[in-house]
Amino acid sequence: MKILIINPNSDPQMGKEIQENAEDFAKGRFEVVCKNTPVAPAFIETYEDMSKAAAGMIQLARENESKFDAFVIGCHYDPHLDVMKEILKKPVVGIGEASIKIASMLGHQFSILTTDDHSIPIHEELVRKYNLYEVLASVRAPGREFDKCSEEEKYLATARLAIKKDRAEVIVLGCAGLTGLDRSLRRELNVPVLDGVVCALFIAAGLAEI
Amino acid sequence: MKILIINPNSDPQMGKEIQENAEDFAKGRFEVVCKNTPVAPAFIETYEDMSKAAAGMIQLARENESKFDAFVIGCHYDPHLDVMKEILKKPVVGIGEASIKIASMLGHQFSILTTDDHSIPIHEELVRKYNLYEVLASVRAPGREFDKCSEEEKYLATARLAIKKDRAEVIVLGCAGLTGLDRSLRRELNVPVLDGVVCALFIAAGLAEI
Amino acid sequence: MKILIINPNSDPQMGKEIQENAEDFAKGRFEVVCKNTPVAPAFIETYEDMSKAAAGMIQLARENESKFDAFVIGCHYDPHLDVMKEILKKPVVGIGEASIKIASMLGHQFSILTTDDHSIPIHEELVRKYNLYEVLASVRAPGREFDKCSEEEKYLATARLAIKKDRAEVIVLGCAGLTGLDRSLRRELNVPVLDGVVCALFIAAGLAEI
Amino acid sequence: MKILIINPNSDPQMGKEIQENAEDFAKGRFEVVCKNTPVAPAFIETYEDMSKAAAGMIQLARENESKFDAFVIGCHYDPHLDVMKEILKKPVVGIGEASIKIASMLGHQFSILTTDDHSIPIHEELVRKYNLYEVLASVRAPGREFDKCSEEEKYLATARLAIKKDRAEVIVLGCAGLTGLDRSLRRELNVPVLDGVVCALFIAAGLAEI
Amino acid sequence: MKILIINPNSDPQMGKEIQENAEDFAKGRFEVVCKNTPVAPAFIETYEDMSKAAAGMIQLARENESKFDAFVIGCHYDPHLDVMKEILKKPVVGIGEASIKIASMLGHQFSILTTDDHSIPIHEELVRKYNLYEVLASVRAPGREFDKCSEEEKYLATARLAIKKDRAEVIVLGCAGLTGLDRSLRRELNVPVLDGVVCALFIAAGLAEI
Amino acid sequence: MKILIINPNSDPQMGKEIQENAEDFAKGRFEVVCKNTPVAPAFIETYEDMSKAAAGMIQLARENESKFDAFVIGCHYDPHLDVMKEILKKPVVGIGEASIKIASMLGHQFSILTTDDHSIPIHEELVRKYNLYEVLASVRAPGREFDKCSEEEKYLATARLAIKKDRAEVIVLGCAGLTGLDRSLRRELNVPVLDGVVCALFIAAGLAEI
Repeated sequence: MKILIINPNSDPQMGKEIQENAEDFAKGRFEVVCKNTPVAPAFIETYEDMSKAAAGMIQLARENESKFDAFVIGCHYDPHLDVMKEILKKPVVGIGEASIKIASMLGHQFSILTTDDHSIPIHEELVRKYNLYEVLASVRAPGREFDKCSEEEKYLATARLAIKKDRAEVIVLGCAGLTGLDRSLRRELNVPVLDGVVCALFIAAGLAEI
Repeated sequence: MKILIINPNSDPQMGKEIQENAEDFAKGRFEVVCKNTPVAPAFIETYEDMSKAAAGMIQLARENESKFDAFVIGCHYDPHLDVMKEILKKPVVGIGEASIKIASMLGHQFSILTTDDHSIPIHEELVRKYNLYEVLASVRAPGREFDKCSEEEKYLATARLAIKKDRAEVIVLGCAGLTGLDRSLRRELNVPVLDGVVCALFIAAGLAEI
Repeated sequence: MKILIINPNSDPQMGKEIQENAEDFAKGRFEVVCKNTPVAPAFIETYEDMSKAAAGMIQLARENESKFDAFVIGCHYDPHLDVMKEILKKPVVGIGEASIKIASMLGHQFSILTTDDHSIPIHEELVRKYNLYEVLASVRAPGREFDKCSEEEKYLATARLAIKKDRAEVIVLGCAGLTGLDRSLRRELNVPVLDGVVCALFIAAGLAEI
Repeated sequence: MKILIINPNSDPQMGKEIQENAEDFAKGRFEVVCKNTPVAPAFIETYEDMSKAAAGMIQLARENESKFDAFVIGCHYDPHLDVMKEILKKPVVGIGEASIKIASMLGHQFSILTTDDHSIPIHEELVRKYNLYEVLASVRAPGREFDKCSEEEKYLATARLAIKKDRAEVIVLGCAGLTGLDRSLRRELNVPVLDGVVCALFIAAGLAEI
Repeated sequence: MKILIINPNSDPQMGKEIQENAEDFAKGRFEVVCKNTPVAPAFIETYEDMSKAAAGMIQLARENESKFDAFVIGCHYDPHLDVMKEILKKPVVGIGEASIKIASMLGHQFSILTTDDHSIPIHEELVRKYNLYEVLASVRAPGREFDKCSEEEKYLATARLAIKKDRAEVIVLGCAGLTGLDRSLRRELNVPVLDGVVCALFIAAGLAEI
Repeated sequence: MKILIINPNSDPQMGKEIQENAEDFAKGRFEVVCKNTPVAPAFIETYEDMSKAAAGMIQLARENESKFDAFVIGCHYDPHLDVMKEILKKPVVGIGEASIKIASMLGHQFSILTTDDHSIPIHEELVRKYNLYEVLASVRAPGREFDKCSEEEKYLATARLAIKKDRAEVIVLGCAGLTGLDRSLRRELNVPVLDGVVCALFIAAGLAEI
């Protein structure tokens, strides 16, 4: 079985990290390829960034439909997920939807960690779209006070706030760029930590097996 | 005051009708221009159709921001409305959101008339996004039995079903292509009939006046 | 076109301010008259205050139906709005409903500024009625610490708290008595500020034009 | 203990029936008095009817507060219930809210029987206000085909439709004028049948005992 | 009339307190018996504790159905309430559902006081089940800073926080073990304080009278 | 990796079918064992049936925790899922929750096929619990008219009704006893058909891999 992860941005470094973490999870049970979207922003932060990726994502989807068994959209905003589901006859899973819905299965409430304050309302809107706003504990970005910390320290501290102050029972990494960070957070925290890439992969693989 | 209606499709006939009906409503109180989206499908029926219009709509918005006081997105699916709101510093109103929210102010429940069955779930999803699914009576497309009727007869009959069977107290025209039909339906029906283009225009004009 | 604003209270000063601000907005494009409710409390603060205005408001509506093209209920609690919509065959718009629904079109979340703590749950209840509680950032009244400030400073500081702490992207003035304050707040804040009287006016005028 | 039922209309016959059924339920365990509202419509069918009763209801409440231990608002629309709760320091229960909330405790879904089609959306709105629209099976008024039947046959047939077609597991009588009909319906149907007057009485009495 | 309170735990002391407070409320108007569940945990704190009580509760229900007129489940988590409602042909009322729904009738928002932090999400989940999460002000357990206070002081302080910080207008005792505490809290606080045992009793008694 | 499916009933035939279909899906990628619950009803149809399985399920879970990497609860009602999640430190997935949440990822609306009318409100309640009632098209049991048809014909006809009349875009098999039927339905229908056992397996396996 072969799964294509469509990375909606054009950053080779992020594409590479997604690819590596996906392979780490797949462990050879299935093949996984991450392709960057041609003509797309380097990072997806705004609604406009998402729009700019539309044409390239559709092109990538159409060119690859026959070569893959399932598709993952590798950005936590789930850009153009409705389109991808519509045009592809094979399973398509967004890392946002996958991790949010799996999170809702693992605890009473979950929090999403995101990279910066600007994206908080976009994540909240997505959670509303998936009907799970009532069980969202919070969306949190690391505060300025962590600016000098390592990525790991920063998100660890932010997750701890979500657990303690917002009573989150599950932590969701709210950006594909954080892929892999779940492992270190999980070691430190006493709650499930979800990487959307991983959640989307096992759902996509599962659906492709049916 | 000048309002730009961005018609997300490229059909000159639909652009012309929107323009004429908009001018009819504006009656010279404000200037209104409808521009078709360059590089866009002739008709917006699917999610993919919406995606294909993204780049052209953004281009149109950026090119015209300084020349207009407010913007209307002239397709009832409200394609890329979040992007348009984000990138334009001036008021932007979608005809779907405008007519749905105004409809919710005029009766206990409203129905949306759409062109074909395929678009029903897309309209329902939009109503959920706007938090008004509890007061949606129905989304209805004319049945096959009206195939030989005139447009007016077709939608009149469909509206009557919505009023009688679904207890709709307000009718919303669910497609910019139906613009103008509200007048004839209103003459026959005893309930408010809303044309999204008109609703979006008066909200956009109002916001631009502030 | 002529619009009647029914001020549900009997305070001549508030009626005068509403009238002036409404005319400022209308700029001669339409005629607008604000009438105080005969036999009504000087200020509408409680549910009982609203009830006391019922008979006078109905009388005012009936006496004026033939003389005006649309009606605005000029209190942010939207007192007796259901009755007014029921008995008048012409458009009726409440300033609460108008500003709350327009606010939901201009940002992910909005906050309402109100005059005192007692009215907070009444405003929240209204937002629930309009199905928009999920996108309400907060309802805030100026704290005691602003007692010695000017009206403008007081509400400016309160709006800033709503923006900063509750992540409001739109500010709604939650009292007809605050009409006009939107202009000075807008100058200071980087988000839309809505005066319900203005929102209701442009919706009512728009509906009357159809 | 003494409970006052405020009948928001002025129909002596309905007041008498409410009084009798209330006494039947009270069986001397507590005293119950039903007073008609001075200056009120003979029957509460519309929003305007409710408004017309406001002043008289407030007068009745204030005059009687010291003489009674709890209050019941005897109309299924719960007219002015918010006001009554606000001004009276003693328990106040609406027969609509009481029966709707008790119904939600007795089955997965409930239906409301009402006197005519016009009131259906008003009842639905009330159920939304009480947050229970998701568990409302239906609101039904007897169809024209039952015009020549007795009251009992009419509502029995209507209840059977609600049970069979809408899968109602509980039936709520949606009008104080139907008080007492629950007994005969209960004999025929295999589901709980709730008279709002009775539900409100036992809640009011319970709260007064605390 | 005879009401059986099924105490889902096996703590004789708690059973005794429930019995005494229930009799205090019943004042001889009806007979009330509280029976502990055979083979059940001493205290119901977790989901597992609830499960362990299932068999004993069903046994108690079946053995006593013919001897009692109505049943109360005496734990605020409402364990196995769906089962009890299903198997008993007579009224069954949970103290959680009863007090939560009555609370929603007495103010805009209510708070639940619970014994410890662990139970907060379980109570929140219950409020969601009853569709009232939008009007839940908070669930609060006494903080560590009150460890040395008396039970009364502890919950009084916690209730005050709920009223002041969360704007609760009604307080619900979230544990059968707190039965009776409502009287002293009510004396100190200016809002209704509800003991679920009492609420369930008057609803059960009312339903049994029909 | 080893996954234990806890079949909450005691029917050896159903246990065997679940085991076989689970192995078919696992195809040796992971080991899967289905164990029947000791002391449980032969079929789980009512709330009481679920309660009767509680003790045995907990025993099974505790005895097997160290031997398996993840757990699936093999009944579409998700009996005691909250308890299982609470007591097991390893992933636990209910086939109801898994298939309902995956269904919500594959189309605008989904329908659940169940074995008989009695279970419809129990399934609806479950969908409400998972916050997805707004996107539930229907729950349908085969009508009497299909009594003489084969299982496959029966559910095929029922699924076709859900697709045509309720506009379901995804079909969920609402009973573990229907496991395997998804393959034949999928061949005939043009929409995704989900077997909860399969959905739960791939989620459980995915979570166990993390």
